[in-house]
Amino acid sequence: MKRVANCLVGFCRRSRFHLHGKHLKPSAVLMSVVRHSSGGTRRVDVSGIYPPIATPFNKDESVAYDKLTENMQKWNKIPFGGYVVQGSNGEYVYQTPEERIKVVEYVAKTATSDKVIMAGSGCESTRDTIEMTNQMADVGAHAALVVTPSYYKNGMHNRALIIHFTKVADASKIPILLYSVPGNTGIDLDPEVIITLSSHPNIIGLKDSGGDIAKLANLVYKTQGKDFQIMAGSAGFLLPAYLVGCVGGVCGAANMLGQELCDLEQLYKEGKMKEPTILQQRIVAPNACVTKRFGVPGLKVAMEWFGYYGGPVRSPLQPITTEQEEIMRTVFKSSGFLT
Amino acid sequence: MKRVANCLVGFCRRSRFHLHGKHLKPSAVLMSVVRHSSGGTRRVDVSGIYPPIATPFNKDESVAYDKLTENMQKWNKIPFGGYVVQGSNGEYVYQTPEERIKVVEYVAKTATSDKVIMAGSGCESTRDTIEMTNQMADVGAHAALVVTPSYYKNGMHNRALIIHFTKVADASKIPILLYSVPGNTGIDLDPEVIITLSSHPNIIGLKDSGGDIAKLANLVYKTQGKDFQIMAGSAGFLLPAYLVGCVGGVCGAANMLGQELCDLEQLYKEGKMKEPTILQQRIVAPNACVTKRFGVPGLKVAMEWFGYYGGPVRSPLQPITTEQEEIMRTVFKSSGFLT
Amino acid sequence: MKRVANCLVGFCRRSRFHLHGKHLKPSAVLMSVVRHSSGGTRRVDVSGIYPPIATPFNKDESVAYDKLTENMQKWNKIPFGGYVVQGSNGEYVYQTPEERIKVVEYVAKTATSDKVIMAGSGCESTRDTIEMTNQMADVGAHAALVVTPSYYKNGMHNRALIIHFTKVADASKIPILLYSVPGNTGIDLDPEVIITLSSHPNIIGLKDSGGDIAKLANLVYKTQGKDFQIMAGSAGFLLPAYLVGCVGGVCGAANMLGQELCDLEQLYKEGKMKEPTILQQRIVAPNACVTKRFGVPGLKVAMEWFGYYGGPVRSPLQPITTEQEEIMRTVFKSSGFLT
Amino acid sequence: MKRVANCLVGFCRRSRFHLHGKHLKPSAVLMSVVRHSSGGTRRVDVSGIYPPIATPFNKDESVAYDKLTENMQKWNKIPFGGYVVQGSNGEYVYQTPEERIKVVEYVAKTATSDKVIMAGSGCESTRDTIEMTNQMADVGAHAALVVTPSYYKNGMHNRALIIHFTKVADASKIPILLYSVPGNTGIDLDPEVIITLSSHPNIIGLKDSGGDIAKLANLVYKTQGKDFQIMAGSAGFLLPAYLVGCVGGVCGAANMLGQELCDLEQLYKEGKMKEPTILQQRIVAPNACVTKRFGVPGLKVAMEWFGYYGGPVRSPLQPITTEQEEIMRTVFKSSGFLT
Repeated sequence: MKRVANCLVGFCRRSRFHLHGKHLKPSAVLMSVVRHSSGGTRRVDVSGIYPPIATPFNKDESVAYDKLTENMQKWNKIPFGGYVVQGSNGEYVYQTPEERIKVVEYVAKTATSDKVIMAGSGCESTRDTIEMTNQMADVGAHAALVVTPSYYKNGMHNRALIIHFTKVADASKIPILLYSVPGNTGIDLDPEVIITLSSHPNIIGLKDSGGDIAKLANLVYKTQGKDFQIMAGSAGFLLPAYLVGCVGGVCGAANMLGQELCDLEQLYKEGKMKEPTILQQRIVAPNACVTKRFGVPGLKVAMEWFGYYGGPVRSPLQPITTEQEEIMRTVFKSSGFLT
Repeated sequence: MKRVANCLVGFCRRSRFHLHGKHLKPSAVLMSVVRHSSGGTRRVDVSGIYPPIATPFNKDESVAYDKLTENMQKWNKIPFGGYVVQGSNGEYVYQTPEERIKVVEYVAKTATSDKVIMAGSGCESTRDTIEMTNQMADVGAHAALVVTPSYYKNGMHNRALIIHFTKVADASKIPILLYSVPGNTGIDLDPEVIITLSSHPNIIGLKDSGGDIAKLANLVYKTQGKDFQIMAGSAGFLLPAYLVGCVGGVCGAANMLGQELCDLEQLYKEGKMKEPTILQQRIVAPNACVTKRFGVPGLKVAMEWFGYYGGPVRSPLQPITTEQEEIMRTVFKSSGFLT
Repeated sequence: MKRVANCLVGFCRRSRFHLHGKHLKPSAVLMSVVRHSSGGTRRVDVSGIYPPIATPFNKDESVAYDKLTENMQKWNKIPFGGYVVQGSNGEYVYQTPEERIKVVEYVAKTATSDKVIMAGSGCESTRDTIEMTNQMADVGAHAALVVTPSYYKNGMHNRALIIHFTKVADASKIPILLYSVPGNTGIDLDPEVIITLSSHPNIIGLKDSGGDIAKLANLVYKTQGKDFQIMAGSAGFLLPAYLVGCVGGVCGAANMLGQELCDLEQLYKEGKMKEPTILQQRIVAPNACVTKRFGVPGLKVAMEWFGYYGGPVRSPLQPITTEQEEIMRTVFKSSGFLT
Repeated sequence: MKRVANCLVGFCRRSRFHLHGKHLKPSAVLMSVVRHSSGGTRRVDVSGIYPPIATPFNKDESVAYDKLTENMQKWNKIPFGGYVVQGSNGEYVYQTPEERIKVVEYVAKTATSDKVIMAGSGCESTRDTIEMTNQMADVGAHAALVVTPSYYKNGMHNRALIIHFTKVADASKIPILLYSVPGNTGIDLDPEVIITLSSHPNIIGLKDSGGDIAKLANLVYKTQGKDFQIMAGSAGFLLPAYLVGCVGGVCGAANMLGQELCDLEQLYKEGKMKEPTILQQRIVAPNACVTKRFGVPGLKVAMEWFGYYGGPVRSPLQPITTEQEEIMRTVFKSSGFLT
């Protein structure tokens, strides 16, 4: 498998579906093993590029499952490690609990068998998060991405966060990854919390969208030997993240530039430096457009340019203006991704 | 009625339940008028002190309705303007949609008829907020307190927020108040947004917890003549808020110091300055303990000291430590509220 | 004297120049007593309105002393408590140590004898601050306003700030006031630091520009009986600050609306509420223009409208644009200060 | 020269002292050419590792030139690209203008001829910055590092910053580098400002301490072909910075771990990945101790461990506590830099 070849820098983690020493394509049987194993079996390898897929909506804001199918058919052909479903780019906060679960189920069914399904299951309360995680496991998620609760900022001190994630991991049928996205939540998971939690047998990794590469390097160093997988939370620092020992990336830009990001990963793993560096430099500005600058409304417009269905966002998010679309187009052109 | 007597500073707004020129105690009949009137009839006067009531939980984190009844019996004897149910102090983010509605219904039934029921109905999406608001109206809420959506911070620009609140107000069966609580959401509602929305017939006011008294003074000035009621979001600046023209306060500390806060209001309305000022100065530090410093876990401990049921918080919130409780006790003692 | 009449709320502090039980107009003789007394004699009453005067520059950015004279002649006729020289509105950070001292000397000589000269003497280092404070004392300053050092934000913890201000107060020939202006420095002086320092015999007060009225109320309460004078750092919350026990205000807007702010103070002290409240409400938006929104460049333009010399700012500050000037004019007009 | 060998990723900039097509060791003669050339000749190559040297003080806080000599003798033996004098780690804000210049002069005289002298010349005003820059040039600085002015945060908009840096560059006898250090100043230089200024013939680079690696990658991409050199402002992200095209680093940790950081650079330039990655991972936590966590007081203690003179900091900075020293020692030990 590509993801474990060419381990330049000593961060080969584990093969994705490892059983009795053999690398297997996951099957329904294996899935149930993964799913029902008590936490900590660590059979899920989350290395590689993961698009945090946008949830397609119809004009009336209902979920457009037909459009989701079309997008999945295209994404399935790209050598992604898997899919993040119901992440920040999936507008998960705008969906009812029922919708969140149903979309995960749909993606799990539509994905090819080589893709890991990582489901965003975080809620504000511990009890809701546990219930959501296990319901997503029941419909096919292989791992859960659990965002930090954030409403009571002063109350979300290190002790509270350790208790929260421990309770969720203890009760979850599937392994979980910590998810720190301070741009949305205002909570930047402290390295001490992450290091403490990295010893939990059912906590297998971290997605960090903060962009502090020194933090990521330090975390790789402090969790080595612990079977803990760290993922970059944006394409903006993907190559540096690989360099310091991250195993993959959950990259909003992979919704439309998935092949390019997989190329970057592959080139890096082949030991090349110049080519992936140039790709990395080119990707920063377009990536910033579809993340920080214009957000999901920008992402959905850009997806249309590359043959995917983008469609409307749910209110209160609003479509970008014509002027913003032109700015974004210029950025994509000047980086050579549009002609 | 006390709330309209003694209008020292020109901010007499409206009598609470005004019908055919008479001031009436609200009745079930009148309630239904309020409730079913198409938005904008402006029959709801929200002046006065409102405790944003804590939601009591049992040890297993289920809602303790019996304890809620006990607390309500005590609160009903205090001359509050009404109750805020499912606000930030009510741990609304930790409750399922069903729980949020059921608690509002319970409080509406348990409250005496002179109290206005203001229900926290905000959700991240516009569609969920509309549905929640109307369901809360159906079970007895007289007005809704709608918090700013906040997850996609960059997307919550002024235009998006104006569209969101307008859509909610258009569709809501009951009048709504804007709710800005930057400490929790990271979003501080811009005065321009507030002034624009103050013209909407079904948007009757604002609760601002930011604590910027200059902003409040400016908003009172800019919305005069518009039948728009501004409420202080904390006891920490209640008297200054009255001074600059606010009509009341939603004060976490009113959960246990309700009579004292009503006294402060009454003394101010009688034209006294020295006594309410001293009360205001004394209240700041204890108030900070049960809001910014120790949050809802601190609030619930302090409630116990004053004969109310506090009980556990829902995880991930954690109880305060023994040391923190001692600090808090010292603050309450040194301000003369505990002996 | 007006400032001690009508003590509604129990915060009469001290008469400004109190000698042998008599209230005297300060004289050159008395000044020298104030100036040469070893720290802690507490003869300086800083109550009242203080304009933090803008430093006038010529087109070549040199100090325009002739224009300063003209402005002083106008200000001297207003019943200010005194002048703040070399504060944030005086562009002190853009002046050499020699210029800072010379401007203080010039204002001290030009001011009428009823005005207290409060000089901004803060530097980043303790040693420079001490030297600057004493040099300003030598040229006529009656008190010093010492801003928090702020470059090494992590190093400016409470202990460091207590040591800094204590060393400065110990060594200063004149009493000092603490100066917290988080908008410029990023450092918000902690109440615990202020309360600790309020016991120092040569630290006589605080100017707080943060605008947190609850903090001010709490500080008044916690420092009562300590001969510690708290001043509002902006006209935006002047009346609320008086209400909670502050003794005066250092208000940028007093550079051009000095009489109006003195009127507000006087009306409040006469026990009126409606009139000063309306003045307070009207002042907020114009005040925001010349402080937060357009800063010193805006302030200097507005000064011209009211017959004062404004003139250029020093680079890197830049003049406001024509569009910004129009916005500002509209705000002043809609608040009734311009016709 | 080591710095231009092994250009893996296409970011070979310029040789340091390039004259008539030949790479020369700088000499006294050449120095004067560099120094006296009118701005924009671009003869200064700033690639490599630069320690932003700590200014040694005696117990009475006077500058300890004898200790500076001792430190310089050790640093001179390390293959640094040069020295940053009077940067943030040099406590420049605590020194008088005369001291700032004298220390630069002393270092320029004490440095071996292969080291570039980069002097921190930023002041709040444009006029002071120009004067300081040229005085530093006169005493031997080859380039100036000009920090963003920051006191009037709202006034330091993009236009003001472009004007400021342009005026300084126009008037400076030596080339300048932009310096963005938001942790101290609260101002994060906008990419648009940097890109605009990168075209100025006398602005040769940027030191960015913000740590946003995506920003650095984007800036390298957008300034290619412009002879603009970007330096990492911390050892915490040095290798990722090299990877995305930065030419060197100004690293506080180089005060005591200079050889190790030069090794990291050398290994990277030789095309190795595993060894520099491990070094990078190990350096993050110790680096954080002497920068963000304990600042200059921590840095000076750690310098003592490695045989350098650290000595006291100037007040208001305070020495770290014994407990903090123990924490720091543990971090250095667990990273293998202390035994």
